[in-house]
Amino acid sequence: MTSSLVAVMGRGVVGDEPVITPDDLGFSRGDGCFDSARVLTDEQGARVVNLDEHLDRLASSAAALDIDIPARERWVELVDQALSAWSTPGEAVMKFVLTRGREWEPQAGPLALLTLREKPVLTPRPTPAGQVPRALHAVTLTTGHPSDAFRDAPWLLGGVKTLSYVTNVAAAREAKRRGADDAIMVTTDGYALEGPTSGLVVVSDGVMRTAPTGDTGILASVTVDEVMRGAAADGMETRVELVPVADLFTADGVFLVSSGRGPCPIVELDGRPLPVDAELAARVARAAGF
Amino acid sequence: MTSSLVAVMGRGVVGDEPVITPDDLGFSRGDGCFDSARVLTDEQGARVVNLDEHLDRLASSAAALDIDIPARERWVELVDQALSAWSTPGEAVMKFVLTRGREWEPQAGPLALLTLREKPVLTPRPTPAGQVPRALHAVTLTTGHPSDAFRDAPWLLGGVKTLSYVTNVAAAREAKRRGADDAIMVTTDGYALEGPTSGLVVVSDGVMRTAPTGDTGILASVTVDEVMRGAAADGMETRVELVPVADLFTADGVFLVSSGRGPCPIVELDGRPLPVDAELAARVARAAGF
Repeated sequence: MTSSLVAVMGRGVVGDEPVITPDDLGFSRGDGCFDSARVLTDEQGARVVNLDEHLDRLASSAAALDIDIPARERWVELVDQALSAWSTPGEAVMKFVLTRGREWEPQAGPLALLTLREKPVLTPRPTPAGQVPRALHAVTLTTGHPSDAFRDAPWLLGGVKTLSYVTNVAAAREAKRRGADDAIMVTTDGYALEGPTSGLVVVSDGVMRTAPTGDTGILASVTVDEVMRGAAADGMETRVELVPVADLFTADGVFLVSSGRGPCPIVELDGRPLPVDAELAARVARAAGF
Repeated sequence: MTSSLVAVMGRGVVGDEPVITPDDLGFSRGDGCFDSARVLTDEQGARVVNLDEHLDRLASSAAALDIDIPARERWVELVDQALSAWSTPGEAVMKFVLTRGREWEPQAGPLALLTLREKPVLTPRPTPAGQVPRALHAVTLTTGHPSDAFRDAPWLLGGVKTLSYVTNVAAAREAKRRGADDAIMVTTDGYALEGPTSGLVVVSDGVMRTAPTGDTGILASVTVDEVMRGAAADGMETRVELVPVADLFTADGVFLVSSGRGPCPIVELDGRPLPVDAELAARVARAAGF
């Protein structure tokens, strides 16, 4: 049973061999985009959760980068090829990648591929009695910019899921260096935006809030949208607005949300305990389909 | 005669084949660093200009990313292997790349390689009578952050030449979209920092200035250092300090400086002509060894 798989557009499923040249601009400049989706595999076969939404977001990222993205049906065909070759039961992560292509052979056009990888077995912090599952400790880290930094500045590629992801990786590493599990990125003018690899939702007094995309530069999150829709359907008021960092410390629940691990309640922030309502955490997890 | 060449540490010179897997974190996350140097080839053979300085800077970048960089002698050996296989006369660009390695096989360790590519033949804007060579039109574009954004925030990787370079590429593309040749990145508090792929030096009243690295997040530039040293040796006063954007419009010379193309005087900025002293431009070019 394979635990990982690669499929390249125009070639189909390939082995565990190198498929990228060093002059590929996705490699040499991070000049490309990606998107990640959940794959669920059971007796009925393998399927991608929210495939359309993820391919939509990939197409938006490509448009922002001015990269010609191959037609939707070619992606769907590539996904089908990958799923046909996949039988590992349980969860996996499918990652779509599109780059500007080779610097030395521009006529070859963009490189499109996907990877499929068995979901790493998480070793979550054990849940102490009375605490919620998937609980995380987090630290706040500055983004270095104000909350409107990306207004009228499309070259800063706010909201675009590019391959240039190294500061996200570095922020996650800094969180671990400080003994925490993850980070919440905050602006120079005092708002909480998102995690390095996840969205952020904050619940206070029965209202669920998440920061707006656009001027903030944060990434649209398919899973945040799902949580917000699920919460609204569950009777909760939802708002898309800037959330002051101070509000995190008085909220009823602060959640980092991603397709990979679902909504994770933050139970400690910058060394201070954050109370999390267990019933609320269960509602939010349900809203996200976890 | 080859016009490009790839050499991979542990393997030596390879052909024009893919050498990177899609799970390489340099590809999937831009989680790696690079550096570029000039290569000059004549009857005496090929040599790298300022090799030590470029390998020093690569090592600094790797340290900031917490990536174990292979020992200096292994890079020198790789460079020797590449140069032995290279005989294309004239100029070329050698690019050193180091990534965190494979996500799916972490035990394999970092990936280290270099590429060598004949310098693309530039088609410079023709030099009108009375104007200086290599003249460029530029536009100012915001970085979205203040000039001290990177203070005490090492996760933002200011000054680190990472593979996450897409906003630099996008800024250069925006400049071209506006009918200019290049961009000068400016902070939200009104200082001129650097070009997307070059350093910036500004000469006013016999004083040459360039912005400090550190809090500004700008990349240390081997060529800027060379220009500053050369100018100092030539009797000019040099200062490392923040340069207000307004000063660009009243300077005697504004230059974008890189190892690839040397110091390029800016003769038009945001559509306004910038006077450039031809004698000064020649002095600055000489100071950079061009």
